[in-house]
Amino acid sequence: MLRWLTAGESHGPELIAMLEGLPAGVPVRIEEIQGDLARRKLGYGRGARMKFEQDELTLSGGVRHGFSMGSPVALRIGNTEWPKWVDVMSPEPVDPAVLSGGRGAPLTRPRPGHADLVGMQKYGFDEARPVLERASARETAARVALGAIAKSFLRELGVETVAHTLSIGPVRVPEGSPLPVPGDVAALDADPLRCFDPATSALMVAEVDAAHKEGDTLGGVVEVLAYGVPVGLGSHVQWDRKLDGRLAQALMSIQAIKGVEIGDGFETTRRRGSQAHDELVVDDGLIERTSDKAGGTEGGMSTGTVLRVRAGMKPIATVPHALRSIDVSTGEAAPAHHQRSDVSAVPAAGVVAEAMVALVLADAVLEKFGGDSLAETKRNLDAYVAAIPATLR
Amino acid sequence: MLRWLTAGESHGPELIAMLEGLPAGVPVRIEEIQGDLARRKLGYGRGARMKFEQDELTLSGGVRHGFSMGSPVALRIGNTEWPKWVDVMSPEPVDPAVLSGGRGAPLTRPRPGHADLVGMQKYGFDEARPVLERASARETAARVALGAIAKSFLRELGVETVAHTLSIGPVRVPEGSPLPVPGDVAALDADPLRCFDPATSALMVAEVDAAHKEGDTLGGVVEVLAYGVPVGLGSHVQWDRKLDGRLAQALMSIQAIKGVEIGDGFETTRRRGSQAHDELVVDDGLIERTSDKAGGTEGGMSTGTVLRVRAGMKPIATVPHALRSIDVSTGEAAPAHHQRSDVSAVPAAGVVAEAMVALVLADAVLEKFGGDSLAETKRNLDAYVAAIPATLR
Amino acid sequence: MLRWLTAGESHGPELIAMLEGLPAGVPVRIEEIQGDLARRKLGYGRGARMKFEQDELTLSGGVRHGFSMGSPVALRIGNTEWPKWVDVMSPEPVDPAVLSGGRGAPLTRPRPGHADLVGMQKYGFDEARPVLERASARETAARVALGAIAKSFLRELGVETVAHTLSIGPVRVPEGSPLPVPGDVAALDADPLRCFDPATSALMVAEVDAAHKEGDTLGGVVEVLAYGVPVGLGSHVQWDRKLDGRLAQALMSIQAIKGVEIGDGFETTRRRGSQAHDELVVDDGLIERTSDKAGGTEGGMSTGTVLRVRAGMKPIATVPHALRSIDVSTGEAAPAHHQRSDVSAVPAAGVVAEAMVALVLADAVLEKFGGDSLAETKRNLDAYVAAIPATLR
Amino acid sequence: MLRWLTAGESHGPELIAMLEGLPAGVPVRIEEIQGDLARRKLGYGRGARMKFEQDELTLSGGVRHGFSMGSPVALRIGNTEWPKWVDVMSPEPVDPAVLSGGRGAPLTRPRPGHADLVGMQKYGFDEARPVLERASARETAARVALGAIAKSFLRELGVETVAHTLSIGPVRVPEGSPLPVPGDVAALDADPLRCFDPATSALMVAEVDAAHKEGDTLGGVVEVLAYGVPVGLGSHVQWDRKLDGRLAQALMSIQAIKGVEIGDGFETTRRRGSQAHDELVVDDGLIERTSDKAGGTEGGMSTGTVLRVRAGMKPIATVPHALRSIDVSTGEAAPAHHQRSDVSAVPAAGVVAEAMVALVLADAVLEKFGGDSLAETKRNLDAYVAAIPATLR
Repeated sequence: MLRWLTAGESHGPELIAMLEGLPAGVPVRIEEIQGDLARRKLGYGRGARMKFEQDELTLSGGVRHGFSMGSPVALRIGNTEWPKWVDVMSPEPVDPAVLSGGRGAPLTRPRPGHADLVGMQKYGFDEARPVLERASARETAARVALGAIAKSFLRELGVETVAHTLSIGPVRVPEGSPLPVPGDVAALDADPLRCFDPATSALMVAEVDAAHKEGDTLGGVVEVLAYGVPVGLGSHVQWDRKLDGRLAQALMSIQAIKGVEIGDGFETTRRRGSQAHDELVVDDGLIERTSDKAGGTEGGMSTGTVLRVRAGMKPIATVPHALRSIDVSTGEAAPAHHQRSDVSAVPAAGVVAEAMVALVLADAVLEKFGGDSLAETKRNLDAYVAAIPATLR
Repeated sequence: MLRWLTAGESHGPELIAMLEGLPAGVPVRIEEIQGDLARRKLGYGRGARMKFEQDELTLSGGVRHGFSMGSPVALRIGNTEWPKWVDVMSPEPVDPAVLSGGRGAPLTRPRPGHADLVGMQKYGFDEARPVLERASARETAARVALGAIAKSFLRELGVETVAHTLSIGPVRVPEGSPLPVPGDVAALDADPLRCFDPATSALMVAEVDAAHKEGDTLGGVVEVLAYGVPVGLGSHVQWDRKLDGRLAQALMSIQAIKGVEIGDGFETTRRRGSQAHDELVVDDGLIERTSDKAGGTEGGMSTGTVLRVRAGMKPIATVPHALRSIDVSTGEAAPAHHQRSDVSAVPAAGVVAEAMVALVLADAVLEKFGGDSLAETKRNLDAYVAAIPATLR
Repeated sequence: MLRWLTAGESHGPELIAMLEGLPAGVPVRIEEIQGDLARRKLGYGRGARMKFEQDELTLSGGVRHGFSMGSPVALRIGNTEWPKWVDVMSPEPVDPAVLSGGRGAPLTRPRPGHADLVGMQKYGFDEARPVLERASARETAARVALGAIAKSFLRELGVETVAHTLSIGPVRVPEGSPLPVPGDVAALDADPLRCFDPATSALMVAEVDAAHKEGDTLGGVVEVLAYGVPVGLGSHVQWDRKLDGRLAQALMSIQAIKGVEIGDGFETTRRRGSQAHDELVVDDGLIERTSDKAGGTEGGMSTGTVLRVRAGMKPIATVPHALRSIDVSTGEAAPAHHQRSDVSAVPAAGVVAEAMVALVLADAVLEKFGGDSLAETKRNLDAYVAAIPATLR
Repeated sequence: MLRWLTAGESHGPELIAMLEGLPAGVPVRIEEIQGDLARRKLGYGRGARMKFEQDELTLSGGVRHGFSMGSPVALRIGNTEWPKWVDVMSPEPVDPAVLSGGRGAPLTRPRPGHADLVGMQKYGFDEARPVLERASARETAARVALGAIAKSFLRELGVETVAHTLSIGPVRVPEGSPLPVPGDVAALDADPLRCFDPATSALMVAEVDAAHKEGDTLGGVVEVLAYGVPVGLGSHVQWDRKLDGRLAQALMSIQAIKGVEIGDGFETTRRRGSQAHDELVVDDGLIERTSDKAGGTEGGMSTGTVLRVRAGMKPIATVPHALRSIDVSTGEAAPAHHQRSDVSAVPAAGVVAEAMVALVLADAVLEKFGGDSLAETKRNLDAYVAAIPATLR
């Protein structure tokens, strides 16, 4: 069983991420994690913050000489802006005088579409700072770092993930467009919106420009693909062991995600049954599916074909033209607090979604195959695949 | 913390369901559970099986004189068809001769869109019987029974759930149609498709008839609403505590569900930020939201407005014109096993989805408010609500 | 991961037990489970109840034709006394008149040493019936049934468990006495106190007789041994993954257990370091330990030598001469409720402890080796053992 | 629900600890945590390492201006010796040449009584370094830091914990000695062995001196008391919810602990039933127990009296006269690796045990009372206590 937790506030000294249950012997390379952290900042439509929010990465435990040790992997991502925030976010008491203005002033005008108001009500705060610091999408950096490690583990087992942007606002890749494969990741990273269809990408750029000009923001849909997933991850036997359910939770838990699909998702609900399923045929002695509408799961288990899941992201809620809100210190109407904002964070959401998928798959792999070292897990996986009878392959 | 597990096979002697963590003092009425079990069978387009698959309900533990005792609630749902299946599904060894034909014959032609093939590969079976018996939607009866208990608990706390059908195949309730409220449940149950819009319902009936005539099946989308949910269930602080993520897992774990949305879901991804969020205004001294696009969650927490979630169901995979498959005993192409099938199970999926939402909410209520008796949980909830400062309400 | 839960009240219609996560292909034989349920009733010093409390066992799910199916195993143990308790324990409301006396009268004089008083305070009851019904040791029948299945799984992997009685009250097997091995179980079952040392057993019988004559009760210590446990179950890397900790929880969770030891336990605390550990030597090319003081774990992991754990049981709290208590309906002093009682249940506790150890080991096996079928788990285990380098064996 | 995990290696750059689920508003003071970290190093019989192993504490997340924020609390404890270990424990690959001798040489002679050998076998290592780095008792510093936070939370709710040393080797505090109360903690900290009985403490000092002279090590028993625990933590309804079981796991999971007792523990097993239980009497209108043999739990729930648990620690396994072992690089007999060692770490174990008890109690408090802020949890607790009927108090 793999457990992963993150901690840390957006403007605190650092984020902490922990991954418990990773076998020993998995390559863990700082530059790989940093690579994914950098990919998380890509994307046309990102504002200035992404540039100065640099990620200083430290591996605190669980890794020695480039490989995991079986012990929990812990890492921290430093906040290079910390010196500016020392007083505001100090874990130790500070003189209230230093908080009286500027960054330290209480945030009493909760932003619609954010955790601000609800978090104050739930936790008993009279301002939103302690809520938004943790609810911020900055937290996803910790997820991406852990996801990079999960991806390294999966890669050693022959599983590779790819995330790409399906839509930005109303602009969508045409149905039936080819899917990117692992070899296409560099091209995706080079595309301004991590979109695999160049023509659509150009339309997306225009859409971002238009929204930017109008002081507005955009959402979109990302898709994560996983190639080489062994058949039989997850299980149909209990509601909380179904792989699709676990993927759905992991994706929906990402900040601003409002919808999740497996395979063709909602499109499938509009098809007739005779057109909605992936038929089974024998091809050169092997069982093949004639299509992949299901997205690589049946009965809550991976089918061994490409896994395909989607997450729909709402537009960024901190719109430049501040939304209506109230000032909770007075009870009067007031515009919401405004913070620097991007036009769209959809490409980044794809990188985060990929990380979450990788973590769920790594967990499901360990559930099925066990193993305390990469060699053991791999041996168990290979033996399982080899033991499937010829007529069942 | 609430835990719930189900057990039992589709044609086995009985289903078992267990609910661990329910406080004492919650009304648990057999007729209420049976009522929900009956609602699960409603719906135009159900085949013959639903009629003779009667549900014999026994409360095995955790309930005394109509109220929960704090101990785990366990119940069983008998299978009235069991006498026909004694040999095929006997827990004890049987003479292989009695299995040589009819019901006992091995199922070697896995059905596309079902767990059959993957389950055989994963668990090492040479036929699909042990897989499909558990993967069957019959299991959802156990979920519905537990959901009825969760609903009773929630009702005592002022929370009421309503499920309705949004679409059947391509036929959808118009955008902006009014939402049903708890008082509409009887009307929904009386509608052939549990659709709240009569005109759409008539179109859905026609769609079911057309599909039936053509030997085909239909999917659709259901929506679950929860009224009276207190603000602050779930939490933004950790990925696996977000209420939306937990709802997504619970809904996606239902058989045949391929997509999940919170609030307006994917529609939100196509809106501009200025149009996508629920603004905050003061109305008569209370904070109100101008809309409910978000579906009642912000930052992974309930906002206190109506919770609204959707699940998209693929069409039934056992289509009357059997899909292509292979016979795994020979490796040759063969039509998939065919079993009696409904045209659509979407209305039933709404009842199941409602049960899952109720279980997730009950769990989140206990996480936030604790309590070993209904009185204690209610007292804690009421005191929390009363303690929210005036300007934050 | 293996999950197990039980439900049901002592005088309710039945106990329910559920085991989630067992691989497919494990032999599950009703007569074996019944055998362990019968062994749970053995023991000199048991009162009359054990005789008429017969166990009617039904396998409700997860088992077909004698083997597990990978789906959750659920079973129920009927209460043959149920007809006498229908009104008192009815899940449905009953006419209060039928509860006015006899079995139905409220239990308002909580028994010291039982959950009665605390349970009333916690759950808000005004009588002890709803508490003692669940806190009763009758619940351990469900554990024993699940343990029998876990033992079957382990046996297929070469792991065998043995429980025996170390002490009854002050009468203890001499230090250094030989340990029983799996072949000795029949002899243990034939011994009146499941004690492996005949001379001590005779003294124990005398002690039971003496206590019985004096209207008193006895506790004692049981020891569970597991032979053939593979090296490396559990893990040192996180507090909650340590095998010894998990065993300690499982044993301490048994009704009336007040102490748990791994290996020589507290005796070890009195030894010097030079005398307290199991040294490593090479014997015929294999690494051997010169002793087994540690009880088969080091660093929270199984060492591959015999696992040895102990549980200390307090004397039965329902002593024939009722202890002092109060009547909570009046606030006045009153003798505690008295129920039929045994002199000692220590031999039964050994059977229960064995079940809990088997469940913990089965869980740890699945954590390390994974597997969805017995064949897969066994293959992974065997490959792991075979892969340990020669100089590390 | 409270979750806590630790990470980090003994000679790595830092330990990381994470506490998930703590309500907002709990005072978290760095100096308090540092105080407990310093107390963990107390104790006559500690070697040199404790002196130069200073603890640099950083609060990384979850705390602002001296109070928890409801978000996960994360902290790190720096290793001031890290510069000496940079090559040996670098997370990044290093030139093998720098590891050829001294600290970097492979540890191929596993120490009996440690995780060394088993860890190598389990994780597939050819030397013990990656195992012992994590299995080291250094990890308990992270537990103590988290425990200090749990203690602060409990203190605000009126719960105070005290740990003291009951025995060192064969030297034990006399039965019936008075128990220390919270006001005695300073005196305990001032005692060389954290023993509350001065005469026994002097004998313990002598025992440590004797063992030191003979090149040997000592174990012992510690006891943790918790005052002010509300009645009804934990539950009798399910095996894994029993408070005693959860305490047993937490204590047994501490490095070198081999036995756990609740209350009088094993002594109780030797008493007759009439002498073994705490009778209930009415005293000045309140229910009192005549004794506290049970240690403050009945039926797996706290009784509201002082909670009393014990943990037995084996003598330190790294004895100065190295134990027999084998060199796994050659398969030949060889003395075990020797590392600097203390004579006894029992007083420190008391501090660690106190931390684990505090964490378990804090978790049980949140399970029963819920709450997202200290004020909410406290309000719920107070209301629960106030609602217990007069005759049940």
